[in-house]
Amino acid sequence: MKRWIWLMIGFVSCKPQNRLIIQEQGSYMVGGTVVSAPGKFHLEEAMNPQGQTLHADHAYAFYQIPSKAKLHRLVFLHGAGQSKKTWETTPDGREGFQNIFLRKGYPVFLVDQPRRGEAGRSSVSENVVAAPDEGFWFTQFRLGNYPDFFPNVQFDPKGLEQFFRQMTPNTGPFDAKVIVSAMYKLLDQIRGGVLITHSQSGGIGWELAINDSNLQGIVSFEPYSGFIFPKGEKPEDISSSGLFGPLKAKEVSTDEFMKLTKMPILIYYGDNIAEVPSKEWNKDHWRSGLLMAQKFVDTINKYGGKATLVHLPKVGIYGNTHFPFSDLNNQIIADHMHHWLSTNQLN
Amino acid sequence: MKRWIWLMIGFVSCKPQNRLIIQEQGSYMVGGTVVSAPGKFHLEEAMNPQGQTLHADHAYAFYQIPSKAKLHRLVFLHGAGQSKKTWETTPDGREGFQNIFLRKGYPVFLVDQPRRGEAGRSSVSENVVAAPDEGFWFTQFRLGNYPDFFPNVQFDPKGLEQFFRQMTPNTGPFDAKVIVSAMYKLLDQIRGGVLITHSQSGGIGWELAINDSNLQGIVSFEPYSGFIFPKGEKPEDISSSGLFGPLKAKEVSTDEFMKLTKMPILIYYGDNIAEVPSKEWNKDHWRSGLLMAQKFVDTINKYGGKATLVHLPKVGIYGNTHFPFSDLNNQIIADHMHHWLSTNQLN
Repeated sequence: MKRWIWLMIGFVSCKPQNRLIIQEQGSYMVGGTVVSAPGKFHLEEAMNPQGQTLHADHAYAFYQIPSKAKLHRLVFLHGAGQSKKTWETTPDGREGFQNIFLRKGYPVFLVDQPRRGEAGRSSVSENVVAAPDEGFWFTQFRLGNYPDFFPNVQFDPKGLEQFFRQMTPNTGPFDAKVIVSAMYKLLDQIRGGVLITHSQSGGIGWELAINDSNLQGIVSFEPYSGFIFPKGEKPEDISSSGLFGPLKAKEVSTDEFMKLTKMPILIYYGDNIAEVPSKEWNKDHWRSGLLMAQKFVDTINKYGGKATLVHLPKVGIYGNTHFPFSDLNNQIIADHMHHWLSTNQLN
Repeated sequence: MKRWIWLMIGFVSCKPQNRLIIQEQGSYMVGGTVVSAPGKFHLEEAMNPQGQTLHADHAYAFYQIPSKAKLHRLVFLHGAGQSKKTWETTPDGREGFQNIFLRKGYPVFLVDQPRRGEAGRSSVSENVVAAPDEGFWFTQFRLGNYPDFFPNVQFDPKGLEQFFRQMTPNTGPFDAKVIVSAMYKLLDQIRGGVLITHSQSGGIGWELAINDSNLQGIVSFEPYSGFIFPKGEKPEDISSSGLFGPLKAKEVSTDEFMKLTKMPILIYYGDNIAEVPSKEWNKDHWRSGLLMAQKFVDTINKYGGKATLVHLPKVGIYGNTHFPFSDLNNQIIADHMHHWLSTNQLN
């Protein structure tokens, strides 16, 4: 790993066709609240919070608009324990969806959600605990059963250190409402886009869809929790041997649910997921997610929507972890997603 | 602020000469440690830390290499309470040093230091406290005496919200050694560069210089704390009415200090700094910094080095805050810095 940056820089400098032509790039904070301490600020007591403010709970967005950009903006929202890094260079040093979709001509917006990464100012205090937990995450994310990789896994073991290091903690308690609020403002400011979510942020995406956000479509990688159904149609909780207890869905009004039928939705699930209840808790946890996702997609389509669930091994794409967008075959995943975007006039 | 992103995108799309041609871009984590919990990991007890690891205390780097790049890589390390955002789009929406120096043809590396931003995994727990403190920071950073801006300040009040929101907390206790260690590895991996520091990271820069880091030069914006001097030549503490107590310097061996004479060094200080001891604690705090910086520069030059201190009002550049690189006149500051880089063969 030690010299790969230099080698890579040298190698690609020789290849003009690898260049990215960026019409515009920048970053800004969006949304959030202001906490105001009562009283009057006194310069001579500036360490006293009285009369001072705390701007917090905003998201951070870094955007790049390529030359001759497509119309539809892709907005990427990471999952639990991640930052926008999740979409950038892969753990084993290849291009991530950031560069891949820039090359395909899309404006790319990468977000750190409120209370994460560079959007760290939170209106609620948090204790950030340093705890060795990577055996758990390795297993939960289906790289394998720690310390062994799955035989067919689309993950280069050389990338494991980067994979662990790209995790980053909450700087304030996770609060879906806070995140939905900031993302709503972002989508409003940029006049809409296609949202790409992952895992925990899947639920954020469904909430945004039913909140009249400026969403033109959603692609979700292995969404978990936050699935919504029309009143009276919520499935039973789905039990599994996963370590987070049964998977529960939420009920919303039928009017709200109908908003999910107004945009194309694509959900991906990867490999090494149990087909029947299993004691392998990682495979079984994601069995419950896949099952709920299927019910979700079926319900959307029953109401006239256009939702698709792609369980990758069923279409001949094997070995994907919980992170298909950064796995070894991520170019294939990206091409598959791009094809879906084009088919749905999201380009 | 609400529509400025869209307007800006529309506006600059019309101007081909605004494009950035990026030969290569990517990101990675660098440096850090591994904490290993004793015992053996058991899949059925995966929430128990035994036998698990925690990769922590690394830095995050995002790099962009423009087409026909200059040889010298610029590595930007933010200051206290900031992330790499500090170098990106300015609070009032103009280009920051990231884009400005890419346009000048430099490879640009932006860093989040260990335990900050997207490099949030820390080996030591931390309580992140939500506290209204922006009146203090407004004043400390010499935008004015809160809530009033200085009359000549190079800051657009419309940018104040973004300025507050770009602050982001430590996710673990600040530890200069941890940061120096990660930055050392970064500079080693990229075969050296010119380091640009700010405020608290000034001290990190001096430590890197005396630790045989691959440093070709240093530009430091209003460095504070961590100034080093040869044994026996450390100045007395410099008192001020600033809220952090007297400014202390550190002693190192003469051999170590001599390493600071081996590379060109440039230090900037802005405006609204007290010339004589003053009760305006913000202006006086930075008076102590400027004084110590002058002694530092004089000592380096006495030993045959090539250090320059630019107190901006003395060269006819007025109104700069603690953040000259993102102030209203940041293009002028960038051109000044670029001229110095060229003059010192750092291009």
